[in-house]
Amino acid sequence: MLRTRILTAAVLLPAVLAAVVFSPNWFFTLFIAVLGVFGLYEIAAMTGTLKLVALPLYAVVGGVPLFGLLYGGDAGWVVPTIVIVLMLVLIARIAAAGRDGAPSVPALAFTGAAYVGVLFPYFAMLRNQPHGVNWVIAVVLLAVASDTGAYFVGRQFGRRKLAEKVSPNKTVEGAVGGMIATVVAGVILSPLFAPTWHAGAVIFFSAMISLLAQLGDLACSALKRAAGVKDSGWIFPGHGGLLDRTCSLVFAMVFTYYWSR
Amino acid sequence: MLRTRILTAAVLLPAVLAAVVFSPNWFFTLFIAVLGVFGLYEIAAMTGTLKLVALPLYAVVGGVPLFGLLYGGDAGWVVPTIVIVLMLVLIARIAAAGRDGAPSVPALAFTGAAYVGVLFPYFAMLRNQPHGVNWVIAVVLLAVASDTGAYFVGRQFGRRKLAEKVSPNKTVEGAVGGMIATVVAGVILSPLFAPTWHAGAVIFFSAMISLLAQLGDLACSALKRAAGVKDSGWIFPGHGGLLDRTCSLVFAMVFTYYWSR
Repeated sequence: MLRTRILTAAVLLPAVLAAVVFSPNWFFTLFIAVLGVFGLYEIAAMTGTLKLVALPLYAVVGGVPLFGLLYGGDAGWVVPTIVIVLMLVLIARIAAAGRDGAPSVPALAFTGAAYVGVLFPYFAMLRNQPHGVNWVIAVVLLAVASDTGAYFVGRQFGRRKLAEKVSPNKTVEGAVGGMIATVVAGVILSPLFAPTWHAGAVIFFSAMISLLAQLGDLACSALKRAAGVKDSGWIFPGHGGLLDRTCSLVFAMVFTYYWSR
Repeated sequence: MLRTRILTAAVLLPAVLAAVVFSPNWFFTLFIAVLGVFGLYEIAAMTGTLKLVALPLYAVVGGVPLFGLLYGGDAGWVVPTIVIVLMLVLIARIAAAGRDGAPSVPALAFTGAAYVGVLFPYFAMLRNQPHGVNWVIAVVLLAVASDTGAYFVGRQFGRRKLAEKVSPNKTVEGAVGGMIATVVAGVILSPLFAPTWHAGAVIFFSAMISLLAQLGDLACSALKRAAGVKDSGWIFPGHGGLLDRTCSLVFAMVFTYYWSR
């Protein structure tokens, strides 16, 4: 399984990297539109709402913001904030009550569609601005640092469960370790994305990315747990679905987009 | 399964297209190096030679030409021709004798390693020359026309088996249909890749691409059949492996490389 993961990443990362680094803005926007539609498909498949009757919901709650933001750009911070709060409410509900207290299928489909439709465009909005490629690569590397730090520190020192009912393997110690690893990585990588910043800004930004990456991860776990699935999909052998691979990035990209302006 | 195929293609094609169209030459060369190494991995996995003892074979027969050609460029047409003949001998042996008459495992590993190592670099060599992107896209579209034409004509009118022991579903009628479809597509697409050619050159070139795409397909089928596997791998859900997706392109790319010079 680990071998499958690594081989898949080795083959697909260069192609994705080419799309991020070398493609013109219009092409990258189309690429994110395709990923967004596929993300909506994954939400529908995992919540069992891949039905004609649910199409209006996905079109209105998912498709309209997706294409609206990709075509029209920034629509302020209110709507994305609402969506992020919605995801946090979902985490909180499951953390408090477990799967039995999870929202109904329509509520899950609505939440998932809004999550993809409102937040996915930020990948393109962040990347398609000046120095956007650097920003995207910085966020991805910081999220990797956060995940890796949390994994190893948690495995070594993890005692207290972070949110047992949402994601049983995560620990408070791991979360702190992830944050420390991200700050260290942020200081090392700061020439890439923050050549003129004060040290305090680098530390604050890195810590925020780690926090949002971990919240993003928990949000996906909450959604998957409520839907009763282990992976969001199957498109990346060994990794699961598209949402599995992007959930630690989405909140962080939204934050970085507003931060960078 | 068809849905899986289509969704995988929809998500991955834009990323691969970005690599082909927008990346600088050095990056595309590295990309093909990665694909080549992964292709050697698939050969080893499917022939059951994913063992330390076989590593020298893959390094010498696969790795040396792969990196040599990617780094040094064109080394004449003799070696690729030998490799293509080797593949045709493999087809012929299996067509004559079935799986029982297939070469031994070492012979298969050698043939597969040479196939990937010598021929994969032509993707980069063709693409990284002037108008190379147009050439690559033209060959891909013509190969798609060939496959599609062969499939539908074969399904409708197929009577005589083409090479029953190598690939039981292929028919002579399908092969002819694929060739006609490719010539039609070539005439339609000729402004893309052949704006100044005579009609005869367009027809000859298109027919050659169809012939080589079909031989490439048979070569892969022969290799897979001899190895006793159905797919070369698992990296593209619904499509199989990397070699499954590239086998109709490899011979055609080599031909187009020399034709274009």
